[in-house]
Amino acid sequence: MNNLKGPVRVVGTGLIGASIGLALGRLGVTVHLVDADAESALMAERIGAGSRDVAGEPQVVVVAVPPDHVGAVIAAQLAATTSAIVTDTGSVKSKPLVDAGALTDDLSRYVGSHPMAGSERSGPLAGRADLFDGATWAITPHEGNRPEAVELIRELAETCGARTVELSVQDHDLAVARVSHLPHLMSALAAGTLVDAPASHLELSGQGVRDVTRIAGGDPRLWTQIVAANAPALTTLLERIRGDLDRMLIALGKDDGSGDITNLLMNGVTGAVRVPGKHGAPHTDDATVLVNIPDRPGQLAKLFADAAASGANVEDLRIDHSPGLAIGQVELAVKPASVDQLVKVLTERGWVVHR
Amino acid sequence: MNNLKGPVRVVGTGLIGASIGLALGRLGVTVHLVDADAESALMAERIGAGSRDVAGEPQVVVVAVPPDHVGAVIAAQLAATTSAIVTDTGSVKSKPLVDAGALTDDLSRYVGSHPMAGSERSGPLAGRADLFDGATWAITPHEGNRPEAVELIRELAETCGARTVELSVQDHDLAVARVSHLPHLMSALAAGTLVDAPASHLELSGQGVRDVTRIAGGDPRLWTQIVAANAPALTTLLERIRGDLDRMLIALGKDDGSGDITNLLMNGVTGAVRVPGKHGAPHTDDATVLVNIPDRPGQLAKLFADAAASGANVEDLRIDHSPGLAIGQVELAVKPASVDQLVKVLTERGWVVHR
Repeated sequence: MNNLKGPVRVVGTGLIGASIGLALGRLGVTVHLVDADAESALMAERIGAGSRDVAGEPQVVVVAVPPDHVGAVIAAQLAATTSAIVTDTGSVKSKPLVDAGALTDDLSRYVGSHPMAGSERSGPLAGRADLFDGATWAITPHEGNRPEAVELIRELAETCGARTVELSVQDHDLAVARVSHLPHLMSALAAGTLVDAPASHLELSGQGVRDVTRIAGGDPRLWTQIVAANAPALTTLLERIRGDLDRMLIALGKDDGSGDITNLLMNGVTGAVRVPGKHGAPHTDDATVLVNIPDRPGQLAKLFADAAASGANVEDLRIDHSPGLAIGQVELAVKPASVDQLVKVLTERGWVVHR
Repeated sequence: MNNLKGPVRVVGTGLIGASIGLALGRLGVTVHLVDADAESALMAERIGAGSRDVAGEPQVVVVAVPPDHVGAVIAAQLAATTSAIVTDTGSVKSKPLVDAGALTDDLSRYVGSHPMAGSERSGPLAGRADLFDGATWAITPHEGNRPEAVELIRELAETCGARTVELSVQDHDLAVARVSHLPHLMSALAAGTLVDAPASHLELSGQGVRDVTRIAGGDPRLWTQIVAANAPALTTLLERIRGDLDRMLIALGKDDGSGDITNLLMNGVTGAVRVPGKHGAPHTDDATVLVNIPDRPGQLAKLFADAAASGANVEDLRIDHSPGLAIGQVELAVKPASVDQLVKVLTERGWVVHR
């Protein structure tokens, strides 16, 4: 490391671009802010993400514009510079490569990348210096890249606080189709069936439907661009879903379809347990303890103080809401070795605890 | 109220049956425990859910057996009693009515119901007296029921601590298909695409895929019975999903499909915001504040103590994990009026807070 000297030009000063500027600024790297929207660049400058006025050739250009424009801006930045390494932050990696490739012959200075961080907020004012701290940042080199160019982008990502993962362009797009874009579409399709549901039906909602439909609330225009850019990988997965859906429909229509239904559900169990939880560990490693909690200020504070007193580190938690009543339940996930002491201490301190 | 005197016979002493016994026991109602599995009834008795040895006609019979057996056991209990009101706890309400109706002419003493509570645990030892505290318990009368019979089952549910909602049998089954069974199937189908994903793809998993696939981990045999019992309502919804899925596939295959993709995603947003959050209120009512939190014992306790000191009541929260690094982010949902003071107090006390 230590090859990243700057200046770094950030093109596109929304949430991601402004956050990259703020993150690099922590280490004194000079950041040049560029945005087609002058107001956005001004706001990014005002929050300290960099300067709109930096002369000379940048060492690195980061293209952080909306998905539909990524390819064209990469090509423009390659043309506008002579030695700079250009990367982008788009959620899909093959389309920018194709789009930029249609506009320029030489993509050797372009190395794709994808910081897996974001927020439900957007725009430069949502920018944060620590947005990437602990996040995964995928680096997706292509055949024409020199190793030093790839290394420089890796260093950029790490300087921003992220952990890098190197994947081929094709692998990356299939991976995000699987773990991000398809879940988003499934969430949207499930949520879409609720638009005309009577309120009395929605009253029976529990935590399950809340979890499944949560991400469906994301910005439809942004997600349209992401989904459209990853159409080939998503089409393969959606056709697989349609096959399974048809099998489910056939099984539901048969008197002896139970075996087929169970097989489809077993498949879901097998897939669900493969999703990594905290720190990449399977979420089944932790033991869970349920605690009843009155809905009053300070009760969570008391619970966590009591949990801390037992020496247990709470790895994860979930509040389960009971519509209509002022009582909730908190599910604490802790290391199995901590459970006995946690239950003992909480019980002694008056909590109603279930293992 | 005050018509529920007991004895209450609970047939099927798994999680739900044992919990009903424990809940009724809190108010001194005599509970008669019956299970085809002698060991299960014995365990339920040992944890105080009731007695295996209660003579005489019960006032109420609660059938809490696995979904496939509900109808037959309802008919058997109607035959075995002369005046008892019989209810069941199945997740689907039309199939038991049809199944029992095939075995007996008079269903006037049968009133369907459905406690919307459960646990990832099962069996009598998972039983809890407070399982239904604050839960919704649907009551689904049919035309042949006398009002007193319906009222008695409502009283039973309320005695167990639940809030009751009255729905027709058909409405109930469509409602749970929408807010429970369909989300489960969508979660299972999404998770099913991960069974053969390379580990390097799964490494890019974030909170979204974790949320969408969580409920897919539920017991496949139990869910097969639930899904099969609600086949008609689910088939209608799944065909709607298939229509939307086909529209999505067509849109992804077209150069000008963006408008269609956006429409489908907008539909998802509209549906997602209709899902009630805590206490039946739309989850958009709360404002959210993000706080960085080091992964050490006691940090959550400190955070919640500091939040409580600001006077804010934490309505909901979520921990976002950063795979690979020892830093996390906690999203606190509070009433909008509490946000300013919360941010002020947390910042003063050294937390890194984002609005």
